Amino acid sequence: MDSFILKGDIAYCDENKKLVTVKDGFLICINGLIEGIFQDVPDRFRFLPIKDCSNQLIIPGMTDLHIHAAQYAFRGTGMDVELLDWLQKYAFPEESRFQDLQYAEKAYSIFADSVKKSATTRLCMFASRHTDATLLLMDKMEASGLISYVGKVNMDRNAPDPLREESAESSFSETERFLREWNERKYRRTFPILTPRFTPSCTDELMDRLGELKEKYAVSVQSHLSENPSEIQFVSELCPWTNDYFEAYDQFGLLGNRNQTEKCIMAHCIWSSEREVDKLKENGVFVAHCPSSNVNVRSGIAPVKKYLERGLKVGLGSDVAGGETESLFSTITDAIKASKVYTRFIDEKTMPLTFEEAFYLATRGGGEFFGKVGAFEQGYEADVIVLRDELLKTTMNFTIAERLERSVYLGLDRMGITHKFVQGKEISSD
Amino acid sequence: MDSFILKGDIAYCDENKKLVTVKDGFLICINGLIEGIFQDVPDRFRFLPIKDCSNQLIIPGMTDLHIHAAQYAFRGTGMDVELLDWLQKYAFPEESRFQDLQYAEKAYSIFADSVKKSATTRLCMFASRHTDATLLLMDKMEASGLISYVGKVNMDRNAPDPLREESAESSFSETERFLREWNERKYRRTFPILTPRFTPSCTDELMDRLGELKEKYAVSVQSHLSENPSEIQFVSELCPWTNDYFEAYDQFGLLGNRNQTEKCIMAHCIWSSEREVDKLKENGVFVAHCPSSNVNVRSGIAPVKKYLERGLKVGLGSDVAGGETESLFSTITDAIKASKVYTRFIDEKTMPLTFEEAFYLATRGGGEFFGKVGAFEQGYEADVIVLRDELLKTTMNFTIAERLERSVYLGLDRMGITHKFVQGKEISSD
Repeated sequence: MDSFILKGDIAYCDENKKLVTVKDGFLICINGLIEGIFQDVPDRFRFLPIKDCSNQLIIPGMTDLHIHAAQYAFRGTGMDVELLDWLQKYAFPEESRFQDLQYAEKAYSIFADSVKKSATTRLCMFASRHTDATLLLMDKMEASGLISYVGKVNMDRNAPDPLREESAESSFSETERFLREWNERKYRRTFPILTPRFTPSCTDELMDRLGELKEKYAVSVQSHLSENPSEIQFVSELCPWTNDYFEAYDQFGLLGNRNQTEKCIMAHCIWSSEREVDKLKENGVFVAHCPSSNVNVRSGIAPVKKYLERGLKVGLGSDVAGGETESLFSTITDAIKASKVYTRFIDEKTMPLTFEEAFYLATRGGGEFFGKVGAFEQGYEADVIVLRDELLKTTMNFTIAERLERSVYLGLDRMGITHKFVQGKEISSD
Repeated sequence: MDSFILKGDIAYCDENKKLVTVKDGFLICINGLIEGIFQDVPDRFRFLPIKDCSNQLIIPGMTDLHIHAAQYAFRGTGMDVELLDWLQKYAFPEESRFQDLQYAEKAYSIFADSVKKSATTRLCMFASRHTDATLLLMDKMEASGLISYVGKVNMDRNAPDPLREESAESSFSETERFLREWNERKYRRTFPILTPRFTPSCTDELMDRLGELKEKYAVSVQSHLSENPSEIQFVSELCPWTNDYFEAYDQFGLLGNRNQTEKCIMAHCIWSSEREVDKLKENGVFVAHCPSSNVNVRSGIAPVKKYLERGLKVGLGSDVAGGETESLFSTITDAIKASKVYTRFIDEKTMPLTFEEAFYLATRGGGEFFGKVGAFEQGYEADVIVLRDELLKTTMNFTIAERLERSVYLGLDRMGITHKFVQGKEISSD
C-alpha cells in the first residue's frame, strides 16, 4: 500500500526556496515515490485509493539533522548554564546512564515514541558512547518507521570517568563492532554514522582510527564544529598545528564528500571563519543549523542566511537537549527569530530568514542528506505530513502559505498531525 | 465555593524572585484569598473540601500585561515584515473590521475562549478604536471569568481612513461614552483603561483630552513606548519640544502613578534612555516586556534584566499579534532566549534572565498591576493553575523546579492544564 492519492491543500518548497501551493490538489504517490501534484486525477491513476484530507494542509515530512537521543530525558531543564558547564553538569551524567541497558530501554522507548509522533520523518542522531545501547536505539528507530542515521559516540578524553572510553583502541574496536552488528541486523531504514563527539573529546589517535573506518566501511560522519568561542579556543590549544577547527577533523580524512555514499554533517558552524565556510562548501558538508540550542546554551547565532546565499548545504537540527524540544516547527520559528536578531545586532546587511526559507531548511535543505527528500516533485520519496489547521480558530480566509506559517508558529505539530507517511508508508499514531 | 484546599506539588516566586517549592503540600484558599501552604492541614481548616492534585504542579495564574484582542485572528502570520510596515499591512486592516459588530462577535468569541483555556488569569488588552465592539469584548471577558482591563483604542492621525477617528473631539467623546457605559454594566471583573495607541497615532489635542479623562474618572492608562528606532525618530519629529518619548505622554499627564487607583503600563521600552528609565521608575510605571513580539517585528531586545535590577515594575506581555501566541509559557521562554542573546551580543555585563526570574515576571511581576496577585502568600488572590506534567514523558526524578522549567519550555499550557482558578473560582474548561 505505498501507492495512493492524498487530496487536500498542498505546500512545499521548490529548489529556489519558494513555496509552491495547490488548493484542493491531489498528491499522487506511486511505490513510495511522489508522482506529482494534480488538480484532477489523471485517468491512469484512477485505480488508486484516495485519502480525502480536504481543507487540511499536506506538507513534506521534516528532517532533523542533529539530535541527541541520549539527552532526551532531561530536555527543557538546565537551561540556565552555558555549553561547557552544561555538558559537565547535565549531558555527561545523563549519557553515563546508558551503560545500563534496562535504562536505555526505557529512555530510548520514550525518545522513539516522541519523534514518531512529531513532524519529523528523517533524523541524524547521536546516541551515547555505549555500543549495545546504541544498537538498541537502532532497533527502536527501525520499529518506529522513521528513517535515520544513528551514531555510537566516540570520546576518549576530557569526559568524566564512566563516560570516557578506556582508550583510542577500545573506542575504535567498539565502533567497528557497532558497524558489523548493524550490518548483521539487516535494517531497512536505520543506518550507522561515525560520531566523534567533537575534537575536545577525541584524541588524535582516535580520530585517525575513525578515518580508517570511514575509508573501510564507506560510512558518513557527523560531529560538532565551531559552536562556542571557548570551545574553539580549546581546540586551537589541542591542535596547535591546524589553521582552524575544520582542519582538526579534515587532517584525519573525516570531512569531505569524495564519493556519493559518504556524507558529512557538522552541527552549528556559528563562528566559522571565511576560510572554514569556503571549506564547508568545497567539501559539500551539510551544516546542521541549531538555533534553539545555540541560543539556549548561549553559543551565538549562526549566519545561516549567508550560508544559504553562498550555496552551502544547510538543514535544521533540534539539537535536543541543548534545544528543548524535538519539534522542528519550534526550530523553524527559532531560526527565523535568531536571524532577525542577527540582522538587528550583528550585521544589518544580512536580511533575516523568510518563513519560506526556514521551511525549506526543515524540509528540502536537510532532506537532501537522505537523497530526494523534502519536496513533492516527481521522484522524491513520499515523506508527508497532514495537518488539521482548523484547530487554530480564526475568522480569516487565509492563503495556504499563511495557514502554513501560522501552523508552524503556533506549534500545530503538537496536536494537529492527522497523518504521517515515510516513503509512502503510513506511520501509525499510537 | 471560593474556599478549598488543593493538594499537590506547589511552586511560586517569593519577592526576591526565588522559587519556593513544596512537595505534597496543601494550598489553602479562603474566600478567594490564599491562606498559605501547609505540609499538613491545620485543624481549623479540616472542614474545607480537598481537591487532590497529587503529583501535579500547582502554580500561580499568569498576567499578560499587553495583548491586542483585535489582532488575535491573524496571529502567527505576516511575521516577515518590520513594525511600521506590519501595522499598515496587517494590524490596521484587521482592526478596521471591528466596525462590524457581527464580525467583532465572532472574532472576540474566539479570543476570549482561547485566553480562557490558557495559563493566563489576568490581562490588560487593547481592543480597537470602536466603542461598541470594545464593550462587546468586555462582555466576553466578563463571561470568561478572567480579570482584565480593556481599552478602547484612541487614534486620530497616521492611520488609514476607516480606522482613523474623525477628530480629537469625537475620539474623546467616544472614550467618555465607553467609560460611562462600562460604569452602567456593573461588571465584577472587567475594567476600562485609557489606551492612546501611541504618539504617532494621537494628536496633541487628543492626548490633552485623554489627560482630562484620566483626572475625571481616575482611570489607568496603557500605551506603547520606545519600541522601534524609526518610531522614536518619528515621535521626536512630531513632538520636537520633548526630551524623549516619555515626555510625549507625560506632558499631558498620562503617565505617573500619583495615587493608588491610577496606574500606567508602557509596552516594550526597548530603546529607553537612562533618563527615560529613571522616569519610568520614579513614576511607578509598569513595563510590559514583550520579547516574542520585539523579535518578530524586529524591534530589538529590551534590557529587562537591568530593569529588574534597578527595581522597575516589570511584567510580561504576549503582545499578540506582534507576538504569535497568547501562551505566556512561550513568552517566558522567549524572554530568557532574548536575554541570552542580549548578553552575548549587546552587553556581556548584563547576565541573562534566569528561569525563576522570567517565571517571576509572568506571575508576580505583572500580577502586581492587579494588586496582591501572582504568588501563594497569605492575602494574595487565589489565581491558580494546575498542570499535569506527567504528560511530558521522562525517566528522570526531577525536582519541582525542574518540572516547572520543562513544563514551561515544552509548552505544557497547550494540553496539560487540568484546573484553573481566578480569585478562588474555578474556570470551566469547556
